[in-house]
Amino acid sequence: AKVKVAHDAWSGWVCVLLVGCATGAFAAVIDVGTSWMSDLKEGICLEQFWFNREQCCWAVNDTTFDQNACSQWYSWSHLFGVSESSVFGSYMIKYIMYVLWAMVFATLAVMLVRVFAPYACGSGIPEIKTILSGFIIRGYLGKWTLIIKSVCMMLAVSAGLSLGKEGPLVHVASCCGNIFSYLFPKYGKNEAKKREILSAAAAAGVSVAFGAPIGGVLFSLEEVSYYFPLKTLWRSFFCALAAAFVLRSFNPFGNDHLVMFYVDYRNAWYLVELIPFIVLGVFGGIWGAVFIKGNIRWCRYRKSSNLGKFPITEVLVVTAVTAILAFPNPYTSDYQRNLTDATTDFTSANIDSGVTRAMWQLALALVFKMVITVFTFGIKVPAGLFIPSMAIGAIAGRMIGIGMEQLAYSHREHYLFKEMCHSGHTCVTPGLYAMVGACATLGGVTKMTVSLVVIMFELTGGLQYIVPLMAAAMTAKWIGDAFDKEGIYDAHIKLNGYPFLDSKEEFTHTTIAADVMRPKRTEPPLCVLTQDSMTVEQIEAIMRETDHNGFPVIVSAESQYLVGFVLRRDLSIAISSARTNHDGIVSNSVVYFTNHVPVNTVVGGPEPLKLRKILDMAPVTITDQTPMETVVEMFRKLGLRQTLVTHNGRLLGIITKKDILRHIAQLKNQDPDSILFN
Amino acid sequence: AKVKVAHDAWSGWVCVLLVGCATGAFAAVIDVGTSWMSDLKEGICLEQFWFNREQCCWAVNDTTFDQNACSQWYSWSHLFGVSESSVFGSYMIKYIMYVLWAMVFATLAVMLVRVFAPYACGSGIPEIKTILSGFIIRGYLGKWTLIIKSVCMMLAVSAGLSLGKEGPLVHVASCCGNIFSYLFPKYGKNEAKKREILSAAAAAGVSVAFGAPIGGVLFSLEEVSYYFPLKTLWRSFFCALAAAFVLRSFNPFGNDHLVMFYVDYRNAWYLVELIPFIVLGVFGGIWGAVFIKGNIRWCRYRKSSNLGKFPITEVLVVTAVTAILAFPNPYTSDYQRNLTDATTDFTSANIDSGVTRAMWQLALALVFKMVITVFTFGIKVPAGLFIPSMAIGAIAGRMIGIGMEQLAYSHREHYLFKEMCHSGHTCVTPGLYAMVGACATLGGVTKMTVSLVVIMFELTGGLQYIVPLMAAAMTAKWIGDAFDKEGIYDAHIKLNGYPFLDSKEEFTHTTIAADVMRPKRTEPPLCVLTQDSMTVEQIEAIMRETDHNGFPVIVSAESQYLVGFVLRRDLSIAISSARTNHDGIVSNSVVYFTNHVPVNTVVGGPEPLKLRKILDMAPVTITDQTPMETVVEMFRKLGLRQTLVTHNGRLLGIITKKDILRHIAQLKNQDPDSILFN
Repeated sequence: AKVKVAHDAWSGWVCVLLVGCATGAFAAVIDVGTSWMSDLKEGICLEQFWFNREQCCWAVNDTTFDQNACSQWYSWSHLFGVSESSVFGSYMIKYIMYVLWAMVFATLAVMLVRVFAPYACGSGIPEIKTILSGFIIRGYLGKWTLIIKSVCMMLAVSAGLSLGKEGPLVHVASCCGNIFSYLFPKYGKNEAKKREILSAAAAAGVSVAFGAPIGGVLFSLEEVSYYFPLKTLWRSFFCALAAAFVLRSFNPFGNDHLVMFYVDYRNAWYLVELIPFIVLGVFGGIWGAVFIKGNIRWCRYRKSSNLGKFPITEVLVVTAVTAILAFPNPYTSDYQRNLTDATTDFTSANIDSGVTRAMWQLALALVFKMVITVFTFGIKVPAGLFIPSMAIGAIAGRMIGIGMEQLAYSHREHYLFKEMCHSGHTCVTPGLYAMVGACATLGGVTKMTVSLVVIMFELTGGLQYIVPLMAAAMTAKWIGDAFDKEGIYDAHIKLNGYPFLDSKEEFTHTTIAADVMRPKRTEPPLCVLTQDSMTVEQIEAIMRETDHNGFPVIVSAESQYLVGFVLRRDLSIAISSARTNHDGIVSNSVVYFTNHVPVNTVVGGPEPLKLRKILDMAPVTITDQTPMETVVEMFRKLGLRQTLVTHNGRLLGIITKKDILRHIAQLKNQDPDSILFN
Repeated sequence: AKVKVAHDAWSGWVCVLLVGCATGAFAAVIDVGTSWMSDLKEGICLEQFWFNREQCCWAVNDTTFDQNACSQWYSWSHLFGVSESSVFGSYMIKYIMYVLWAMVFATLAVMLVRVFAPYACGSGIPEIKTILSGFIIRGYLGKWTLIIKSVCMMLAVSAGLSLGKEGPLVHVASCCGNIFSYLFPKYGKNEAKKREILSAAAAAGVSVAFGAPIGGVLFSLEEVSYYFPLKTLWRSFFCALAAAFVLRSFNPFGNDHLVMFYVDYRNAWYLVELIPFIVLGVFGGIWGAVFIKGNIRWCRYRKSSNLGKFPITEVLVVTAVTAILAFPNPYTSDYQRNLTDATTDFTSANIDSGVTRAMWQLALALVFKMVITVFTFGIKVPAGLFIPSMAIGAIAGRMIGIGMEQLAYSHREHYLFKEMCHSGHTCVTPGLYAMVGACATLGGVTKMTVSLVVIMFELTGGLQYIVPLMAAAMTAKWIGDAFDKEGIYDAHIKLNGYPFLDSKEEFTHTTIAADVMRPKRTEPPLCVLTQDSMTVEQIEAIMRETDHNGFPVIVSAESQYLVGFVLRRDLSIAISSARTNHDGIVSNSVVYFTNHVPVNTVVGGPEPLKLRKILDMAPVTITDQTPMETVVEMFRKLGLRQTLVTHNGRLLGIITKKDILRHIAQLKNQDPDSILFN
């Protein structure tokens, strides 16, 4: 018994350890693959074609890493022999190969998704949120989804599309969580327990995406998980840390993850800079609202029009447009460089001609990124949203940062800037603005709060910039909330019609259960069973005529006191197995849900069918006078799917999760039927 | 209406902003006061006696701060004129003054607590946990408690007792939260809403104690709050940040808060060092278990013996012992220096004689701290536990660190240490060991997890030491849990018999509601009211004879279907007001809880009393077959105080929170009556 208890206690830890390691390993493979394929767009390592550029050059010359002095790495223009002869020709070859490879990668990605795992497309976070709220989507976290999503993620990112890896990595981690939980019966056989593992896995996903274990845990807590029991906090943290550790061990070149936005300057910021930071926050909030509206409208159009029938064409068009427009601009041509460049110091502020050119390129990159991201999120390849959102913010932030730098430099003697520019240092750190901008846009799009700020800390290592980051994130959230309180994930949940009861929104109306329950006054009475007077035939007829998932059982038609609740599935299995296995059970056998079958059944009559063991004797009930506020709270906190409504012990009706969602939509003056349930 | 909605939405933000600012201001005052009084033990600033030493010396010489060249600061030995004449005399004067001032401060503190606010003693966190779980302790968060706790906290810390400020600061912050919530009716009038403000306030308390806003939020989430709705996450963060910001603005000298343990080295750690880190974790876990056992046993002895009658004497004895033993040892004589010294690099490792002396002093300090802390936590002054716990760990960590340093230095060529000692740097960073040790002991004592690691990050700024900190914290928790799963706060909650239903512990037994509910089979039937057949007199008799907090109302004595639940308080107010204000209401008036009073009441008979409006028509009910696991979950998540038990709509009994606590104690083979409820 002691061994069993210990095994029980440790199985959770072992399970999250396995999930963390698997997630780290998948992330490492994905990273290596992505980096190789991204470089393939530019050239190839002739001797060892499986090396990416960095490894190729390292292999040749292992003391210094010089991008130019690398004899083994052949760019495509060089391979085709036009490298020396013509600058224009060389550029065109590069351009064409870049677009071509992008198209190849994108085609492969969308084909694989279409053929093998339709669930592998998109971000996955809306679906995982829904799953964690108690809804089951069969196959969504299966092994095929896992494999295809991993492969297609590499392809999609390498294709240079405006998408990131964090959402898909969360999905991949959740798949690992789902698969490993079957090794431990305690978790595999209990959906509620399994969701604890999935919460931890989601934390690991963000952890490997950004090298931010604490941020990952908070993301899982704040954004993904519906109900996050505190005892899983530590396990999630452990899982996230294991994943980050494995990733770092497997992929020594991949430490750009941990420092993707790393700021190694410790320059102070000044109070007057809060003004541009808040401006960035406003930009982030507005952009978030615009993005959500635009993206949802485009996705709805895709669903309702013919466009939805040509997903492959759509992906190819988006890829072609992205590749053709992205290549000429240094700020958009490369997935990795884009971000790191946009945050680190790269230009000395006082040379004016370079600055003007950079500003133009940045402005073009910003517009391009903004437009293309709206159309990219939702195409049928794995697509995360963090990186493009942050890139947009970083570009905007860098522009404002360069502007501030120019302003401060040219008004060096002004009393506002005097302190900033003393002692010949750079006056302003544009990289800090990029970081703040990234935080603001990501906040506007996802409506994350604390987890966002913590992820930014861990991403940048800039613990001293808490106030700028907070100010921007908070402004972004407030401005965004003024337009619409929904984040992009909630908007997509609603778009797809998943039965998700938001646990953040407050229910403040004064309606009571009697207003919401069915049957309404004009509807036919509730479909119920009696505990000891219905025949097998009658029950079968009821099951044929209705499609409810379960039926309340009452004392008798005259005395409608509630006895229990029986699930349709259990009932149909029990009746059909009784019919086949017991000769005595015929159509007019009486079904008993009671404990004692009366002895005075008709002698020679049909054998009674005892079904007490499938009866749920403890259904959750409320009275008809219960305020809906309380009912909604019970649904959220107890994870209910339905509750029975009684008055003085008599059964009156039923309220399901869908009834509540419909009621909330009605109260918001939305058309309740616009909420599709699939 | 729009204004009202906006006001409603903003009132929460304004309230937490005020709470944050007030907490920051209180913390600033407490810091300044503590620093002044602590320095008073050593000397005085003659010109401006209200300056502490640092300010005194700054005022004299504002370009450099040199401890010796400060003419305005007079040490007591100097004032008494024995400074030059005799080294021994000077030392004795210093010693006596140190002890004397400590006694004065401690006496003042305990007197103020005794006379003005008995609730101001202790840490406050167990009580706040209980309050946040739904229990009400009147006056615990009042203004007198706030003022006295603030003053006495300064006195107690200045007295040099082995206690810290974080628990009392959480209490002070919660008092601010409680007081400010009355400015906003939405929060002041609704206990559940007020608890949201209190959760945010608790975060602010930790934030000002350590300058760790994120850690504060996580502490509130993980340790203090019973139910932490996610929408308050952001507000708590805002509150914590506001508090930290105000503290820093008010108290420019007090930035030692933010860097109390600051490590500015970035030395790498090596995999082999994980062994001593895990040893520290084991030490932390064992120490936590020993401390909790010892402290609880001592507190129980205090409660049950005569000792409890002499709180003032106890405080004086503890203070005298602490002061007399602490003064000679440089590691224990000063509150601030102790900690910072214990983590920063201070001794060059290769000088052997100094090391031996330091080791001896550290060992003595460790033993002294360990013993005195057990007796200090629980005396009748405000007392926090974080700082002493961390100090113990930091001392132990530094000892192991110095040991490792010696080992590595003397075996420089050994393959294990070769990498560590290359290129003439110090081989080992003892400060890092101190930090890890502090983390381990605090983890062992409080059983905190993620919040602990985050607080350590924010305290030390060492984001790269996540793995050492995690390893130590996790080992400490696992080892500690092997002894007892309770943290010190939970142990004190149980000691004081607060009705607190732990939300972390899993309830795994297979009992059902019928086993727990009252009345048991042998007990008299449940005390109920009927909806339309009892007279005023009968109800008054029932209320006289019983002391239940409320009564279920049923249809009639023959048909025991549940109608609703009425609170004793409402009932007694309603009846007595009816008796005084309505002449028609006499002893044999019939009380009606129904909607319609039948018209065929006896003509000329007494006027009926209608009490439907005080009837709760939506009491939470469960069936007698409900598994207790589900019942416990409902109590925790819905914050219930009681639930009614029915069978087929008929009322069978009632389960209160105390019944559940008693049941859990029984299942654990504890004597259920040992759980006192006061």
